[in-house]
Amino acid sequence: MAESWSFLDTFEPNFRPLVVIELAKGTKEETIDWFTKRIVDKKANGGAQLLVKPLVTENGNENIYLVGASHLRLLLGAETVGLVKECNDNSMRTFTYSSRKTFKDFADDNHNFLTMAEGQYIIKHELENLRAKDEKMIPGYPQAKLYPGKSIVRRLLTSGVLVQIFPLHDREELKKLRHSWYGQVKVGYQPLDEIRCYFGETVALYFGFLEYFTFALIPMAVIGIPYYVFAWEDYDKYVMFATFNLLWSTVILEVWKRICAIMTYRWGTLLMKRQFEEPRPGFHGVLGVNPVTGREEPVYSSIKRQIRIYLVSLPFVCLCLYFSLYVMMIYFDLEQWALDYHKENESNFSSLMLFVPSIIYAIVIEIMNRIYRYAAEFLTSWENHRLESSHQNHLVLKVLVFNFLNCFASLFYIAFVLFDMKLLRQSLATLLITSQILNQFAESLLPYWLQKRHKKRMKKRMCSLKTDVDLSLVEQVNLEKEMGTYFGTFDDYLELFLQFGYVSLFSCVYPLAAVFAVLNNITEIYSDALKMCRVYKRPFAEPTANIGVWQLAFETMSVISVVTNCILIGMSPQVNALFPDSKMDLILTVALVEHLLLAVKFIMAFVIPDKPRDIQIKLAKLEFESLEALKQQ
Amino acid sequence: MAESWSFLDTFEPNFRPLVVIELAKGTKEETIDWFTKRIVDKKANGGAQLLVKPLVTENGNENIYLVGASHLRLLLGAETVGLVKECNDNSMRTFTYSSRKTFKDFADDNHNFLTMAEGQYIIKHELENLRAKDEKMIPGYPQAKLYPGKSIVRRLLTSGVLVQIFPLHDREELKKLRHSWYGQVKVGYQPLDEIRCYFGETVALYFGFLEYFTFALIPMAVIGIPYYVFAWEDYDKYVMFATFNLLWSTVILEVWKRICAIMTYRWGTLLMKRQFEEPRPGFHGVLGVNPVTGREEPVYSSIKRQIRIYLVSLPFVCLCLYFSLYVMMIYFDLEQWALDYHKENESNFSSLMLFVPSIIYAIVIEIMNRIYRYAAEFLTSWENHRLESSHQNHLVLKVLVFNFLNCFASLFYIAFVLFDMKLLRQSLATLLITSQILNQFAESLLPYWLQKRHKKRMKKRMCSLKTDVDLSLVEQVNLEKEMGTYFGTFDDYLELFLQFGYVSLFSCVYPLAAVFAVLNNITEIYSDALKMCRVYKRPFAEPTANIGVWQLAFETMSVISVVTNCILIGMSPQVNALFPDSKMDLILTVALVEHLLLAVKFIMAFVIPDKPRDIQIKLAKLEFESLEALKQQ
Repeated sequence: MAESWSFLDTFEPNFRPLVVIELAKGTKEETIDWFTKRIVDKKANGGAQLLVKPLVTENGNENIYLVGASHLRLLLGAETVGLVKECNDNSMRTFTYSSRKTFKDFADDNHNFLTMAEGQYIIKHELENLRAKDEKMIPGYPQAKLYPGKSIVRRLLTSGVLVQIFPLHDREELKKLRHSWYGQVKVGYQPLDEIRCYFGETVALYFGFLEYFTFALIPMAVIGIPYYVFAWEDYDKYVMFATFNLLWSTVILEVWKRICAIMTYRWGTLLMKRQFEEPRPGFHGVLGVNPVTGREEPVYSSIKRQIRIYLVSLPFVCLCLYFSLYVMMIYFDLEQWALDYHKENESNFSSLMLFVPSIIYAIVIEIMNRIYRYAAEFLTSWENHRLESSHQNHLVLKVLVFNFLNCFASLFYIAFVLFDMKLLRQSLATLLITSQILNQFAESLLPYWLQKRHKKRMKKRMCSLKTDVDLSLVEQVNLEKEMGTYFGTFDDYLELFLQFGYVSLFSCVYPLAAVFAVLNNITEIYSDALKMCRVYKRPFAEPTANIGVWQLAFETMSVISVVTNCILIGMSPQVNALFPDSKMDLILTVALVEHLLLAVKFIMAFVIPDKPRDIQIKLAKLEFESLEALKQQ
Repeated sequence: MAESWSFLDTFEPNFRPLVVIELAKGTKEETIDWFTKRIVDKKANGGAQLLVKPLVTENGNENIYLVGASHLRLLLGAETVGLVKECNDNSMRTFTYSSRKTFKDFADDNHNFLTMAEGQYIIKHELENLRAKDEKMIPGYPQAKLYPGKSIVRRLLTSGVLVQIFPLHDREELKKLRHSWYGQVKVGYQPLDEIRCYFGETVALYFGFLEYFTFALIPMAVIGIPYYVFAWEDYDKYVMFATFNLLWSTVILEVWKRICAIMTYRWGTLLMKRQFEEPRPGFHGVLGVNPVTGREEPVYSSIKRQIRIYLVSLPFVCLCLYFSLYVMMIYFDLEQWALDYHKENESNFSSLMLFVPSIIYAIVIEIMNRIYRYAAEFLTSWENHRLESSHQNHLVLKVLVFNFLNCFASLFYIAFVLFDMKLLRQSLATLLITSQILNQFAESLLPYWLQKRHKKRMKKRMCSLKTDVDLSLVEQVNLEKEMGTYFGTFDDYLELFLQFGYVSLFSCVYPLAAVFAVLNNITEIYSDALKMCRVYKRPFAEPTANIGVWQLAFETMSVISVVTNCILIGMSPQVNALFPDSKMDLILTVALVEHLLLAVKFIMAFVIPDKPRDIQIKLAKLEFESLEALKQQ
């Protein structure tokens, strides 16, 4: 099949390359034939009914294929993935091919009705759900076993035949986006709707959250500055600051839910029914019937999954947490030992020795983090979640807990075991500022610089080959396939989460933390934008209705911070001076205040509705309509 | 119209009297004509299209009317109220007249497809939603103003023209139900499905909860007995008991949600869409268009309601709480004064004086409770909630908080201000046992006895009038219209809630509380059953999917009980003896344990799914189908 596409086909009006498939060098002809045939084959025959075309460069066919789809095919695919679009009457509805005329901007010849990102998402979805029927193995690779219902792309990836699948950039659109995002020197909101059109909802929601979070931190930062400037150490001022912080953090997290609902309603993802999602590609099981949809798909017992989660993953995570705490204790012992050694034999060597424990600890933590991350990914895959969202949530939860402990355990130890507030403030400031600087550098600026160098070299090579200097499709594909892969918003959220921890957990000790957080986030927006547009391959769009498990994580952090701040205030000498006679009264008062604050937090979270009223009404209306439709049948 | 029904019509095969309407004596003819015409008038003309018939007794027409409906009318009404019934394929679906053939047990001549309770619910719904169109007032009563959209029945009730509306008992069915419920001497589950068929879901769910709660208390009671028998006062045994109690109470409340979901799925109410409910009869506002359904109905601004809730109701409730606390403090002062007086001048009079404060306090509390209840009902009506459920929730919340304070404030004071554990145990036992005995007596046995006396007198009167001794319809109506009205499950749940408080709040001080609670609940089931079947008028069935705000109330109580029990254990001399040197260590340990227990509770509540997996799948399947149906359009 693949041969039937000539190089000239690129210029066919119907074929717009959307997604690139890179096969390993030396892949057998029979495998390629089989795979491409499956891609272009009719749906009825178990194919994906897409268009595929080899990319022929001056070196001949390099096993790179471009995948596209006809306009009609994309529209049908939009129905399969359950895309929600705006109708002519401004309501949001699930797109169906039969009702296509009622949608805004729809016209049979308007190929921009679906954005490029949506097209790429549909193609990815179709490719990933290309499932084996009666094949026992991948043709040409007898060791790569297949069974009915197994995702073919998944098997090709794990067996190394398929190197990568990625969506192509749209250079024109990207240029426009870059300009309105960070090209102009102006203060203002990010073009979230454009970001969403280009990168999809998950990325846009991250930038939306980052922006919202930065704005939300400003009041904290503004209040925090005078504490630093005037060196306030008053008890009542600290209490006021901490109380404001605690209630404020509840408010901002509740309000975010509402803002998020408004955004995702506009984007249509709030209405996308996640439970009718097809299973994630990594999901395996015997072919059975989905009890909800009645469709044929792999089925895996939920009890087995529960057993794996609670009897294997949970104990493993606990063990890792214990181990991490143990390592921390060793670190503090080492630190103490180095300090003692330095005191006893003061020399250049001994003062150098003072740094050794920290360095060793930092390295060990880094190693542990990497190993743990690998283990967490393995375990979560092994738990075999049916939905991508559930897989992500379990992965995030695992990594989160571990990172939380690694980052904050030493601060907790300093605060509540060593009772050393000065050291706490010092450590907090050092950790916060260095981690922010390092992150910005390692995450965006370094890759950007590397990317730039690589691009120059590529261009030189291209020039030396005497092809057209204009950036052709071939050159674009070759450039982009070498770019790094963006592994999702996980690390970005994690960074924000840890920052939120630094700001809120010990906020009454170091009110300036919020100022640094705001400054960092402003540059973070720009460096992350740079990263998305310049450094990484374009990621596939991922529809999402909320920030998922991160909401829970931030809320939990905000609850923990009530406890820590109350204890810190209770420990401060000023507060202690108020209860000169009885430590007991002090502790009881602190406990009482803490419980009151927690109660207020929960009541606030309960009272503030998660969705604004007009969104609630729109959702109820849609549900009502679907109920009426069911009645009509 | 009313005159066209002769007395003989009772024997018409089509007319089965379901609901009784009693108008005031001396109601004007023109009013009666207008009202009955509206009831029988066609839907298109703004009527309810029901059947109505005057009840003619030996004294002539006493302004009592029987309301029924044709079988077809009831089926159409079932569609209007959104009744969910079982289909032939065992799935639960919203009933529609057009799809009637697919439902289990449906046949055009099967008049038992809808239960009598369902028929009565439909008629009540239709009557209550009989709304004024262009009438400016009730004919004959110029002072009873009407405006478009105002519920006619509501206005008739408030203007005193309509005395009451109530559903008739089904003597045969009731006899059967009584027999299987409490007629036999046997230990076993209650016939919840039969109760639901006869009294509706709200009542059945209350009895289901009562039964479940009793079973759930048994482990606590069994563990509590040896504490009493062997007079255990060991610290570690108390801790074990309290810890078990705290975790157990979380588990039972979570498991109840699952059991409740199973039951209400079977009854179809889990699927009933409450948000598409018609507004409650007491709801008023200008006639507008419901943004969800697009139907014409009264509309009231949600912001106005919020303002009323937060700026009037909330401050009022807080003021009442403060006042109640103030009264309690006066009571303790009086108590102290009486004690001092008794010590100084010991005499018969002075020892009598010792009881005076308690008696005064009890009377004052009773008066405050009544006034507050009245005020709460007034305020909640004034808040003008659109849905009956939301109205109920706000009312329950208001009354709940006040009752909680009245019941437990003195116990809290004794425990945490006076630190008198012996007095606490004494007060707890006295309060628990006397309140249980008084409740059972006042709530069921006394009314039962009164009811029996009344019935005998009625029968005598009937005999003296020389009518047929057989209990005719006339006699039945006359008997039932004099019976007391069951005002819903509110007081029954409140009793259980306060009992749960006695059992859990101070459980480690008085482990025997659970035993008394179990014993009380076993007799409570029987006395409540007696009350429902013998004492009160049949209540209208109310579909409900859960126990609503009570779930939240019980969960909150269980959180508060973690705090109180931890403090009580911390205060016990045995635990104090463990920390001889430092009170501080003791308090810190207690606080730590408390936080851990709270964390475990929240994690458990988060991890245990609210609905069993098979119910989740069934619900998802239904949602999927309705989505597909929408696509078909």
